[in-house]
Amino acid sequence: MTTEKLTAEILRKESFLCVGLDVDLDKIPKHLLAQEDPIFSFNKAIIDATHDLCVAYKTNTAFYEAYGLKGWSSLKKTIDYLNDNFPNHFTIADAKRGDIGNTSERYAKAFFEDLGFDSVTVAPYMGADSVEPFLTFDDKFAILLALTSNHGAFDFQTKSCNGEALFMKVINSSKHWKNSQRLMYVLGATKSEQLSQIRDMLPDSFFLVPGIGAQGGDLEAVCQAAITKKVGLLVNSSRGIIYASRSDDFASAAREAAKSIQAEMALILEAVNH
Amino acid sequence: MTTEKLTAEILRKESFLCVGLDVDLDKIPKHLLAQEDPIFSFNKAIIDATHDLCVAYKTNTAFYEAYGLKGWSSLKKTIDYLNDNFPNHFTIADAKRGDIGNTSERYAKAFFEDLGFDSVTVAPYMGADSVEPFLTFDDKFAILLALTSNHGAFDFQTKSCNGEALFMKVINSSKHWKNSQRLMYVLGATKSEQLSQIRDMLPDSFFLVPGIGAQGGDLEAVCQAAITKKVGLLVNSSRGIIYASRSDDFASAAREAAKSIQAEMALILEAVNH
Repeated sequence: MTTEKLTAEILRKESFLCVGLDVDLDKIPKHLLAQEDPIFSFNKAIIDATHDLCVAYKTNTAFYEAYGLKGWSSLKKTIDYLNDNFPNHFTIADAKRGDIGNTSERYAKAFFEDLGFDSVTVAPYMGADSVEPFLTFDDKFAILLALTSNHGAFDFQTKSCNGEALFMKVINSSKHWKNSQRLMYVLGATKSEQLSQIRDMLPDSFFLVPGIGAQGGDLEAVCQAAITKKVGLLVNSSRGIIYASRSDDFASAAREAAKSIQAEMALILEAVNH
Repeated sequence: MTTEKLTAEILRKESFLCVGLDVDLDKIPKHLLAQEDPIFSFNKAIIDATHDLCVAYKTNTAFYEAYGLKGWSSLKKTIDYLNDNFPNHFTIADAKRGDIGNTSERYAKAFFEDLGFDSVTVAPYMGADSVEPFLTFDDKFAILLALTSNHGAFDFQTKSCNGEALFMKVINSSKHWKNSQRLMYVLGATKSEQLSQIRDMLPDSFFLVPGIGAQGGDLEAVCQAAITKKVGLLVNSSRGIIYASRSDDFASAAREAAKSIQAEMALILEAVNH
């Protein structure tokens, strides 16, 4: 998918919501456990109930890998279901990969070619040559960890590194990497005080913002800091939507939770465009 | 596995060699491609030919994920084969994971419980709370990326961060993390000039040293800088061993390549203990 198309979808749906499909078998309704593939059944129900309210789906690969081969199979079925039925949704493998060049090439193939995701999250610690292999695919994106939403972000990311915070150094360096137009950035919603400064550095990039809801981020503060005329934001909610109810009404409860965020987003988008 | 047991195995076999099972279907002998699971068949042949010469096996998960479900299945068969037949070998999932706490917990379960590895490599960028979930399992280890063997290591890892190189900051911080006795460290063989300084900071830790062979690292220089009375080193070779020959004699060629490294290691160990 191109960023132009993603932006068009955002404006059409009045939503820049990304729904995080982080499925935990201990938290889904018990009746699903009897099905052949409970994770996929859960995801399908969530997708069917929310697709018109969001523009992106993010699968955190850890939640699938934790179930071994079965989990990997559920991940494949989920991305296939999305690509077959909702090809206009932007798909994110939240995998936080990154390795030496020939290995990153393998990861890129795994997520872009074998699985068919539009994007994958990537860690910057190993530098340019660990990320650039992800940037060689047309209309595919690497979403670089810059400033994350967890407490550990203060351990290294915010430390001064040759005169600027490490996450700033990561952002500034990444702008010079080959095919950097295929980069997006992970920026935690819990760090909105830094977001406007980062937006100045990256006026045209998409930010993937996790941390709304369970992690305490505030949608309005994020938008005030970082929304642009072309929007440039994907705001993710996982637990707040998919576990809005843990009973049989989980799908309609997820829809209500997504609808409430989408409604807030519609108001914000209207304000931006006036 | 405990580090005491790993050290005992190293001394018994006179080897601190780790063989990297990074299988690329384009590089393995053609006749294996006709088998039901070419990757596992290749790994099994390599393991059978080298197990008495090495103390550890490292599987780079990217090479398996690149083949999707089939690759994940080959990974599972490989670790099962190792655990069933060679339980005294230390096993490493070279996965370079790291995410917010509840997600890292999932990854830890995936690699330690579902797959049954002894250790997993972990990236430090997201800080303490992204690594500590890997340190809560008895006799399991997180191997933290500190100074890697690729050129991109110079982009961030070696930059001065509050007065010390970022990789030094990572190492110093990690010593205060909960259960830090379950940490090992990835230190590239191409950086032997820094290794002795790092050894002074971490006198008792195991270092996993990739980069021997194809990446240009020098075994003797690494050992001079970082070997201890208790050894404290696992030196990895992947391509130099598993692709020593690409013909039908690949397994015996792998054995010869491993034997030549093991012989060098035996001499080094003898020198250390005299």
